Amino acid sequence: MDKAFFLHLLEPNLKKPILVEGLTGLGNVGLIAARHLIEVTSAKLFAELYAPYFPDYVTVKKDGICTPPCYRFYAAKTEKNHYIILTGDSQPPMEDTQGYYDICDEILNFAEKQGSKFIVTLGGLSTSNATNEVYIAATSEKLAQKHLEKGAKIYSGGKIVGTTGLLLGLAKNRGWKGICLLGTTTGFGPERGVALSVFKTLTSILEENVVSGTTEKPKKTQNINNQYKPEVT
Amino acid sequence: MDKAFFLHLLEPNLKKPILVEGLTGLGNVGLIAARHLIEVTSAKLFAELYAPYFPDYVTVKKDGICTPPCYRFYAAKTEKNHYIILTGDSQPPMEDTQGYYDICDEILNFAEKQGSKFIVTLGGLSTSNATNEVYIAATSEKLAQKHLEKGAKIYSGGKIVGTTGLLLGLAKNRGWKGICLLGTTTGFGPERGVALSVFKTLTSILEENVVSGTTEKPKKTQNINNQYKPEVT
Amino acid sequence: MDKAFFLHLLEPNLKKPILVEGLTGLGNVGLIAARHLIEVTSAKLFAELYAPYFPDYVTVKKDGICTPPCYRFYAAKTEKNHYIILTGDSQPPMEDTQGYYDICDEILNFAEKQGSKFIVTLGGLSTSNATNEVYIAATSEKLAQKHLEKGAKIYSGGKIVGTTGLLLGLAKNRGWKGICLLGTTTGFGPERGVALSVFKTLTSILEENVVSGTTEKPKKTQNINNQYKPEVT
Amino acid sequence: MDKAFFLHLLEPNLKKPILVEGLTGLGNVGLIAARHLIEVTSAKLFAELYAPYFPDYVTVKKDGICTPPCYRFYAAKTEKNHYIILTGDSQPPMEDTQGYYDICDEILNFAEKQGSKFIVTLGGLSTSNATNEVYIAATSEKLAQKHLEKGAKIYSGGKIVGTTGLLLGLAKNRGWKGICLLGTTTGFGPERGVALSVFKTLTSILEENVVSGTTEKPKKTQNINNQYKPEVT
Repeated sequence: MDKAFFLHLLEPNLKKPILVEGLTGLGNVGLIAARHLIEVTSAKLFAELYAPYFPDYVTVKKDGICTPPCYRFYAAKTEKNHYIILTGDSQPPMEDTQGYYDICDEILNFAEKQGSKFIVTLGGLSTSNATNEVYIAATSEKLAQKHLEKGAKIYSGGKIVGTTGLLLGLAKNRGWKGICLLGTTTGFGPERGVALSVFKTLTSILEENVVSGTTEKPKKTQNINNQYKPEVT
Repeated sequence: MDKAFFLHLLEPNLKKPILVEGLTGLGNVGLIAARHLIEVTSAKLFAELYAPYFPDYVTVKKDGICTPPCYRFYAAKTEKNHYIILTGDSQPPMEDTQGYYDICDEILNFAEKQGSKFIVTLGGLSTSNATNEVYIAATSEKLAQKHLEKGAKIYSGGKIVGTTGLLLGLAKNRGWKGICLLGTTTGFGPERGVALSVFKTLTSILEENVVSGTTEKPKKTQNINNQYKPEVT
Repeated sequence: MDKAFFLHLLEPNLKKPILVEGLTGLGNVGLIAARHLIEVTSAKLFAELYAPYFPDYVTVKKDGICTPPCYRFYAAKTEKNHYIILTGDSQPPMEDTQGYYDICDEILNFAEKQGSKFIVTLGGLSTSNATNEVYIAATSEKLAQKHLEKGAKIYSGGKIVGTTGLLLGLAKNRGWKGICLLGTTTGFGPERGVALSVFKTLTSILEENVVSGTTEKPKKTQNINNQYKPEVT
Repeated sequence: MDKAFFLHLLEPNLKKPILVEGLTGLGNVGLIAARHLIEVTSAKLFAELYAPYFPDYVTVKKDGICTPPCYRFYAAKTEKNHYIILTGDSQPPMEDTQGYYDICDEILNFAEKQGSKFIVTLGGLSTSNATNEVYIAATSEKLAQKHLEKGAKIYSGGKIVGTTGLLLGLAKNRGWKGICLLGTTTGFGPERGVALSVFKTLTSILEENVVSGTTEKPKKTQNINNQYKPEVT
C-alpha cells in the first residue's frame, strides 16, 4: 500500500451531502461531537479509508479481532440534509505533513464523487480555562458572520492544525464552502461538555439549512434535540 | 531502488500455502519460533525481499561476505499443509509507517501469487512477569475462539505493532483469514522458552489442519514434536 | 495532494521576467525586502503554489477566513524589467530536504514557462553583530564581481540554506544566471533595517539593468527610490 | 526534482571500468583515498549526480559561486584498468534510508551503462586505537581471501553503514563482484595516515589486476607509487 485506498461497504445514494469531520485530537472534541451526530441521525457506516500514513499497528478488540487504523465514513439523511460523517480512531503522526495533505485530498475526492460541496470540520481549541465557548472559522467572511447569532464567536487569528484545519483549507481551494467549529478545551482528557456545545451549534446551523441559505425553523432539529441524551449533565 | 523487490531463488510449487511470519522484535519470540518451524519442516529458502525501507547498511559475516538487510521466504511441505515461512534479520525503523504498509502489501501480493489465503503471525507481548502464556488475536471471532482449547488465551484489547500486527490486519482487509500468536515476554534478550510455547501452539493448531476446519489427529505433528529438540529445558 | 500544484489567478504576460525570491527566514530579511519590491512596483498577485511539504495547518485571519500555507507569485513591470516576485508566509520544515528540492524545481519550471532565465534570491546571514552589510553570491564569478561597486561584498565561503540557496543553485544547474543578496542579521525579530539595505542593493542592481549588461542610468530606479517610504529611519 | 538526476559533462569512453567509491564519512578515510586516486591517475570529472536526498543548501566558495551538493564521477585510464571514481562533499542525512537506497541504485545503473561490473568501496572503521590496519569485506569469500596477502585483514562480522556498505551490497544483488576496504580510525578529524594505507592496498590490489584474476606484476602500479607524493610522512 503506497497510497490511501477505500473499502466501499454500502452505496449510500446521497444528494449533495454535507461532509462533517470529527476526528481524534485536542480533548477529542471533534470525535465526540461527530459520534453524537452519528447516533442521533442513525448514520450508517458505508466506507473505510486505509492509508500508509496511519500508525503501523492493528488494534485488537475484546473479542480478539484485529483491525488496522482507518477513517470511517457514515451516511445520514435528515429532512433537511444528507450527511457524510467522517470519524476514526487514529490520525497520521503530527510530523507527517505529506500524509495529512494526501489523505485530505483523498477525502475530498471521495466526498466530491458523492456530490459534496460543503464541509464542516469539528475540533478543539486549546485554552487554559475552558468555558464551553465555540469558535468559528470559514471559507468566507460571509459564512463566518452568518453564524454568530447561533452562539459561535469568530476565531479571529490563529492556526487550525491537522485534518480539521487542512481539510477545510483544501476544500476552499477547490471552490467548496465550509466552516470549522472549535470548542475550547484545556486538553486534559475527553471533553464531553464542550463537545456537546459544538454539537449543538452544529445542529443549530446545519438543520436550519444554512447551506442553501434559508432561515425557516427546521422540524428535524427539534427531533434531534429530543432524541439526544447527553452523556454529561 | 524506490520500491521493494524480490529475488526469486527457487520455484517452490506450493498449494494454498499458509503464510507464517516471525521477525525480529520483542524478545525475538516470533523470529525464534519461525526458525524452529523452518528447522523441523526442513524448509527451503526460495525468495528474498529487499526494500528501501530497511536500514542503510550491509551486514558482514565471519567470512567477510556482505549482505543488505532483507526478508527471507522459506517453502515447506508437510502432510497437512504447505507453508511460506517469512523471517529476517532486520525491520524498517519503527517511525517509517509508510515503509511498513508498503512492505506488508508486497508480502501479501507475493504470497497471494503463491496461492496463500491464510496467515499466522508470531510475536512477543510485553509483560512485567513472563509466564510463557500464549495469546491469540484473529481476523474473526470464530477463529480466535476456535483455538482456546490449544492453550492460547484471547488477546482481548490492545495493539499489535509492526509487521506482526499490520500484516494480519491488511490480510484481513483482502479477505484472508488468519491468526496472531503472541508469547508473553519481559523483552530482555531472546526469549527461547516462550518462543517454544508459541511454536508448540502453532504446530498444534496448524498441523491439526484448522485451516480447512477438520479435526482429525495429524500424524505429521507427532513427527514434528518427536523431531524437535528444544534448546531450552 | 501528493505534488505541488499552482492556482493560476491572472495571466501576467511577462517578457523575460526576473524571478525575485524573498521568503520567511533569518530575521525575515528576504520576506521584508520582497514585500518592499511588491509595494513600490505595485505588483499583482497572479498565482499561488500549494504543496504537501508545507505545514499541515491553515492560518485564520481576523475575519475568520482560513487559508492553507502557500507561496505567492506577484507580477510587476517597470521600465527596465519585468518581475516575478515570490513570497509567502511559510516554508517546509527544515528537515524535509526532498520537499525543498521538489518545490524549488516546481518554482523554476513555473518561472521558465513565463520566460525567466535570471534569478535573485534574498535572505539573511547570521552574525553576532549586525552591520547592515549586504553580501552577494552568484552563479558565476563574473556576476558576483560585477556588483561590488553597488556596496555588496562577496560572500566568500559558507552555506546558504533553504529555498534562498537551493533555488539559486538549481537555477544554475539549468543554465540560468542569478545572484543571492544576503543581509547580515542577528536573527532576533524582523530586521527591517538590513532588509532595506538588501532592497536598495537589489533595486540599484536590477533597475540599472545588470541582466542585459548595460550600464546607463535608469530613470525608473529614481522613481522607485522617490516612491519608497522606508519603515525604519 | 523528485528523483536523482545526472549532469553529463564528458563522454569518457570507458571499457569495463572499475567503480571506486570514496565519500565523506568516518575520518573521511574513503574521501581522502578516492582523491589520491583521482590525483595519481589524472582522472577527469565527467558527470555530476544531484538528488533531492542531499541537504537543502548550496555551498559558496571563495569566489562567491554557489553549488548544490552533488556526487562527482571522474574517469581514469591506467595501463591495467579503466576507473569511474565516485566522490563528493555531502551525503544524505543518516536517517534517510530511502534516499540511500535510491541513490545507490542510480549510481549502479549509471555505472552499468558505462560497462562496470566490479566495485571497490572505501571507508573508515571506528576503533578506539587506530593502527592504520585495513580490513576487507567482499561479495564472495573467494574475493575476500584473495587479498589477504596484500596486508588487508578479513572484516569478520559487523556492519558497514551508508553508501560504502549499501553500494557494495546492492551491487552484489545485481551480480557484480566487489570489495570494500576499511581503514581503522578513531574518527577524530580527517585521517590521512590510514587513508594512505587504504589507498596503497587499493592500488596494490587493482593495479595487479585482481579483477581479471591475473597475478603478473603491473608496471603502472610502480608508476603510480613513484608519482605519488603522500601528504603524511
